[in-house]
Amino acid sequence: MLEQLKEEVYQANLDLPKHGLVKYTWGNVSAFDPETRYFVIKPSGVSYEEMTADDMVVVDLDNHIIEGKLNPSSDTPTHAVLYRSFPQIGGIVHTHSTWATIWAQAGLDVPAMGTTHADTFYGSVPCARFLTQQEIDSGYEYETGKVIIETFKERKIDPLAIPGVLLHGHGPFTWGKDAQSAVMNAVVLDEVCKMNLFTRQLNSFSEELPQRILDKHYLRKHGKNAYYGQNK
Amino acid sequence: MLEQLKEEVYQANLDLPKHGLVKYTWGNVSAFDPETRYFVIKPSGVSYEEMTADDMVVVDLDNHIIEGKLNPSSDTPTHAVLYRSFPQIGGIVHTHSTWATIWAQAGLDVPAMGTTHADTFYGSVPCARFLTQQEIDSGYEYETGKVIIETFKERKIDPLAIPGVLLHGHGPFTWGKDAQSAVMNAVVLDEVCKMNLFTRQLNSFSEELPQRILDKHYLRKHGKNAYYGQNK
Amino acid sequence: MLEQLKEEVYQANLDLPKHGLVKYTWGNVSAFDPETRYFVIKPSGVSYEEMTADDMVVVDLDNHIIEGKLNPSSDTPTHAVLYRSFPQIGGIVHTHSTWATIWAQAGLDVPAMGTTHADTFYGSVPCARFLTQQEIDSGYEYETGKVIIETFKERKIDPLAIPGVLLHGHGPFTWGKDAQSAVMNAVVLDEVCKMNLFTRQLNSFSEELPQRILDKHYLRKHGKNAYYGQNK
Amino acid sequence: MLEQLKEEVYQANLDLPKHGLVKYTWGNVSAFDPETRYFVIKPSGVSYEEMTADDMVVVDLDNHIIEGKLNPSSDTPTHAVLYRSFPQIGGIVHTHSTWATIWAQAGLDVPAMGTTHADTFYGSVPCARFLTQQEIDSGYEYETGKVIIETFKERKIDPLAIPGVLLHGHGPFTWGKDAQSAVMNAVVLDEVCKMNLFTRQLNSFSEELPQRILDKHYLRKHGKNAYYGQNK
Repeated sequence: MLEQLKEEVYQANLDLPKHGLVKYTWGNVSAFDPETRYFVIKPSGVSYEEMTADDMVVVDLDNHIIEGKLNPSSDTPTHAVLYRSFPQIGGIVHTHSTWATIWAQAGLDVPAMGTTHADTFYGSVPCARFLTQQEIDSGYEYETGKVIIETFKERKIDPLAIPGVLLHGHGPFTWGKDAQSAVMNAVVLDEVCKMNLFTRQLNSFSEELPQRILDKHYLRKHGKNAYYGQNK
Repeated sequence: MLEQLKEEVYQANLDLPKHGLVKYTWGNVSAFDPETRYFVIKPSGVSYEEMTADDMVVVDLDNHIIEGKLNPSSDTPTHAVLYRSFPQIGGIVHTHSTWATIWAQAGLDVPAMGTTHADTFYGSVPCARFLTQQEIDSGYEYETGKVIIETFKERKIDPLAIPGVLLHGHGPFTWGKDAQSAVMNAVVLDEVCKMNLFTRQLNSFSEELPQRILDKHYLRKHGKNAYYGQNK
Repeated sequence: MLEQLKEEVYQANLDLPKHGLVKYTWGNVSAFDPETRYFVIKPSGVSYEEMTADDMVVVDLDNHIIEGKLNPSSDTPTHAVLYRSFPQIGGIVHTHSTWATIWAQAGLDVPAMGTTHADTFYGSVPCARFLTQQEIDSGYEYETGKVIIETFKERKIDPLAIPGVLLHGHGPFTWGKDAQSAVMNAVVLDEVCKMNLFTRQLNSFSEELPQRILDKHYLRKHGKNAYYGQNK
Repeated sequence: MLEQLKEEVYQANLDLPKHGLVKYTWGNVSAFDPETRYFVIKPSGVSYEEMTADDMVVVDLDNHIIEGKLNPSSDTPTHAVLYRSFPQIGGIVHTHSTWATIWAQAGLDVPAMGTTHADTFYGSVPCARFLTQQEIDSGYEYETGKVIIETFKERKIDPLAIPGVLLHGHGPFTWGKDAQSAVMNAVVLDEVCKMNLFTRQLNSFSEELPQRILDKHYLRKHGKNAYYGQNK
């Protein structure tokens, strides 16, 4: 079942090492099927080189395995919470990519300091808080998803305008309309984390992009007046 | 039409990911044909892997599509302004390459701190100012070109001696006698941005190259007394 | 003899340049055979490109060559001391990988600042002291092993929970249940050294991971309650 | 003539982009033939991809072309001075490799901070001064060689023990017993420049390697008591 989605998720997972975002079995990509309300996700701890599209696991939003011989990613409950709470998204990526993880370890939001950021994220990418002991005990991966939701709700952030988050001390999650766009957002987030770190080192007075440039760049690629690319 | 120029522009575009200057569809290269006064440019948002030489778009200096099934790069009006105002140039490159973009985000000119810089750029590479709201509204990409021209005119910089610029908060544009040399200038600019950042971190008293060394290196590669390479 | 172990050690050695941990002939991997109490190790100063599985050298714990036409790695006595003192380990890796060596040159322990660290190392990775003149004269490589043992004993560190060490001014040693897992621990150590350096630069107030997150991540991958991967 | 040396020089030149030390046509390698007292060097400004072993140029120590259709590297006179003054060396490399060039731009000697350095360079790698206007006018590349000689003479440095130098504002030259070992020394120099920069950033109190460790590592690889590798 969901053979095409499995193939997409498989290819998107392979894109992670190709873009230098993961080493070994780290990282995982999933994609959601709105019809069945199942999602397809990478198996846990399987190497990218040995993996096949057939190894992808189909699970429902309660984390039951619907199809698949392997255990799904240990981060599956986090994915499920995100698909439940952000109904417009179709793909999710988790990595420990170097530069985004550095910002996660530093516990800082990623400010929009350039148009590379503005082309994809319409403002700062938030850093979500550490989980409490109680949350860890109650279900670490599920509660991780809840803390992401809490972060977006409390700060009134639109998850489509800011399709990513950092987890304090851990690393990034990104999402998008499908698996492929979630991967692209993971690539962009890692790159702007690298750029912003060195921008501030080069000139400690560097500021965020003026609002007018942020608006212009985000809106020439997104929304009804977008004119970038071939879709017009 | 302009089949050979299309091939050159196509190859020069492929050189951008090959040299690590772009990810995904970011970046674009164009080249100018002095006879027809048309230029050939990458289509907008098309991936480097799927693109063919035939997909290159021919446009005139008023941004009308002369030939091509696809939309040209959204940065086309910036290229047109540069070809109009810098009549000696034959190729233009725009990227968000990591280290040049870091300097662009920091809003700083790139000083000539070594002979790697002096071999290509005869002095500091300027950083152009942010556009005003009025300029953004009037035509963002066209006005971006105008701000580059303004920067070179106000500072009395010869665009052939300094074949590149940073746009504050955005990234670099470079140019050259053809598409290939514009790409090479983009590679050099990114590399000297990396080197200069860490040079100042290593020794905050590091100074610009003495004028006599800058002269020597630039002039052994450029101008009537050049003796580098096979053309003598 | 030990043909399969030779093949494993050979492949694990090839993984070092593949993961960017070594240049030229730097670095070495060994693996221990509990039955014969011999270990198999890379020959000294032989290039990775020319090496074959047959070139691997079999030595005993007193550093006598049991089989092999080539000299074993000059670091062989260090490996022997570690196999003698840490009886549970099956593979050892030594590299001069960039970021771990930077921490070794700085003479600092590597604190656990993120879950990438916690997934593999259950606390700080220690930096062992310089050898004295007397120790160098008595047998540099053997005494290097003794100083590693001393470090773990004095600080009461479990070598299975912290499968690696830095040597002040030199570089890292890592180990694991076999050659392959020792290589993976070398990859992780280099990556967390890179991340932690820039984390502190980005936010000098960055702290170590809270104990509860360290516990959670280490224990979901290790020990009897582990649930990561396919082995449950 | 000197067909085998041409092949060695050709291969050594190809090793420069392979090790990430050069972009485009930057950099050059030469090797000396003690019998004829000619040396073989890369042609000027020819791309590594198009170059063949046959394109290598044979020159004498007065910079006369003995054989070859192409202009030799513009740095040929620097190579000639080094072969004249350091009679024991058989190969020379010049690059603008990123991290060594950063130290050159900063105008600093590279201190021995780790065993990676000590395995190859028996102490600090010196940074030679800028040329004067008079020296530039008299013959830039020739005088560059003279300044390197002056640096080693004034500081009483043995060019076999420290087989490399930085030129202030420019980049590194390294040498060795042949072209291949000169390339290896260029790789090591770039790597220790990278490591040392970040070591000092990580711990500004980091010191040079104790003399006893420097002695041990250098002398286990070099001189009559060396025991590293297969030559014993």
